[in-house]
Amino acid sequence: MALTHVRIVGSGLIGTSIGLALAAKNVGITMIDIDSDAAALAQDLVGGIAPSSQPDVTIIASPISTLSQVISEQISQGINCGFIDISSVKVNPVLDVQSSGLDMSNFLPTHPMAGREVGGAESARADLFQGRPWVIDPTGVSKDLLQIGRELITACGGHILEVPAAEHDRAVALVSHLPQIMSSILAAQLESAPAQWLDLAGSGLRDTTRIAASNPVLWREIISSNQGALEPLLDRVIEGLQELRQSISDPTFVEGFIKDGNRGRSMIPGKHGGVARNYTFLPVVIEDKPGQLAALFDECAAAQVNVEDLSIEHSPEQYTGLITLALSQSDADKLYHHLLERGWKAHSPR
Amino acid sequence: MALTHVRIVGSGLIGTSIGLALAAKNVGITMIDIDSDAAALAQDLVGGIAPSSQPDVTIIASPISTLSQVISEQISQGINCGFIDISSVKVNPVLDVQSSGLDMSNFLPTHPMAGREVGGAESARADLFQGRPWVIDPTGVSKDLLQIGRELITACGGHILEVPAAEHDRAVALVSHLPQIMSSILAAQLESAPAQWLDLAGSGLRDTTRIAASNPVLWREIISSNQGALEPLLDRVIEGLQELRQSISDPTFVEGFIKDGNRGRSMIPGKHGGVARNYTFLPVVIEDKPGQLAALFDECAAAQVNVEDLSIEHSPEQYTGLITLALSQSDADKLYHHLLERGWKAHSPR
Repeated sequence: MALTHVRIVGSGLIGTSIGLALAAKNVGITMIDIDSDAAALAQDLVGGIAPSSQPDVTIIASPISTLSQVISEQISQGINCGFIDISSVKVNPVLDVQSSGLDMSNFLPTHPMAGREVGGAESARADLFQGRPWVIDPTGVSKDLLQIGRELITACGGHILEVPAAEHDRAVALVSHLPQIMSSILAAQLESAPAQWLDLAGSGLRDTTRIAASNPVLWREIISSNQGALEPLLDRVIEGLQELRQSISDPTFVEGFIKDGNRGRSMIPGKHGGVARNYTFLPVVIEDKPGQLAALFDECAAAQVNVEDLSIEHSPEQYTGLITLALSQSDADKLYHHLLERGWKAHSPR
Repeated sequence: MALTHVRIVGSGLIGTSIGLALAAKNVGITMIDIDSDAAALAQDLVGGIAPSSQPDVTIIASPISTLSQVISEQISQGINCGFIDISSVKVNPVLDVQSSGLDMSNFLPTHPMAGREVGGAESARADLFQGRPWVIDPTGVSKDLLQIGRELITACGGHILEVPAAEHDRAVALVSHLPQIMSSILAAQLESAPAQWLDLAGSGLRDTTRIAASNPVLWREIISSNQGALEPLLDRVIEGLQELRQSISDPTFVEGFIKDGNRGRSMIPGKHGGVARNYTFLPVVIEDKPGQLAALFDECAAAQVNVEDLSIEHSPEQYTGLITLALSQSDADKLYHHLLERGWKAHSPR
């Protein structure tokens, strides 16, 4: 069975991105929003005219707290199909929908693990889900809806992972919601700091606080809906910080504290999943002007090496840049010698 | 007065990097370490033969806890000059040196705001301090030593900032030591997590935990020496997390919590100091193979735009990459149209 018409309620970043991805596969899309301007923009972006047929499935991409209400409204408007949700938390929203009386075999809870720090239809991208994990909880869901869901996720480029709702919520509490909380509370400490103090900041502070710029309205819903999974994590973090506070003058304790972090950090998978690759890092100093990066990557191409990752560092009042290229050990060695021969300011790979 | 001979006690990353930077300016360098192999490696890297003359100044680049002992040893070995320290914390080490009986007009406390996640002489770089802030506390220091210190820092490419020791310690507690603690304790929570949970991780988790990979022995000293400045910060963070724990089911409270982080994050200065620039972000999807980055940056050069920053995102099992280029608004628009004309998968700048 091929999808012909998908109805998407909620014309924000995720809803519109799904619309774009499916429209690219010639699926007819109806974009809906309580804000009719937002719906019109999304429909324009997605393209085509909203089909008048009954949809194969309706995706609810509105805020978490509106989920059961939106489904009831859709049903009362005569929509007669399965529903898929895409919210960032699963247990509480599913309970809400259940208590609203919906036949739960007609409701597929999912969560595409993709997002941006910017929101709205204008930020939507057809490739937002390409290769990203997309969690589904198939428990009790009808065979038909499950098949439609799988087809839809695959069409968006998502990688389906079956995870029960409760486990999903514990997992995202750890890998997504707790990092947001830690980044936000760290950044909040900066607000009253003298400007000169912040001039001393390096890339460590910038990296740890990047997601502190996230959308408060979106995160208000996510965090407050995932109370059950977050509470034990917050307790562990608070306890750990209190222990550090207690033993902060004890170098042995502090060393153990940092080592625990080393071990945890090493658990995060690398580029293509699995255990993090041990990249070799090659520092190159370049002038901060147009053409320098191009010339550097020309050299990478000439040396036939694959750059796995890179970072650019600048300092206040500094007009040269330090590019650190991450490569395999052998590629790093090859490129290093290549760059030296060509007169670049490359430093030994580490 | 030109520097002719600088003695550096401590042949790790910072000491050897200072040696490299000064040697490049034709200053004679003596590298010292309790580990004679490390000293020999550092001396080889720095180049030349250690001068036999009395040094103009001696830099103490050994672990914080050894500072006063190392100075006493140097004096007892007949070294007769001023001393400069470079440790990451100032108040406690200065008190240690003071109580050891040294003439404090002969001791210049400084802190170069530079480092790497890797250590040792083999990681040293002559350009480590280029354009980075280098804090000094000139209080009570002799005019001669102060002049030598300024000359030395300038020769290393550092940007001198005068900050009293106590204020320095409060500043780095906030912008460097607290981020380290938050990153470490966040990463530590991952250690017992199932691998599948970590497969759901995105760039948020990776960024917030990057510095959790830092050296435990180095950070043991830094954190335990800066107890006084860190305790009130830890208290504020613990209190803030307890308040969130208490009110986590209240969306309005959570929204305020995230907004506080938004405001703090916006305080961090951007590339060339001052308030963070509002970059425009241009997403480009490329194939993950050699030559693609080079070709992209060729286009940047052809379009004559200046790339201010960039990030590469990959997903598990994904063999395309998303490059997000940060540029000025006008450069982003120019490049976007240029890339589209040339057939690239560029998406609207945001």
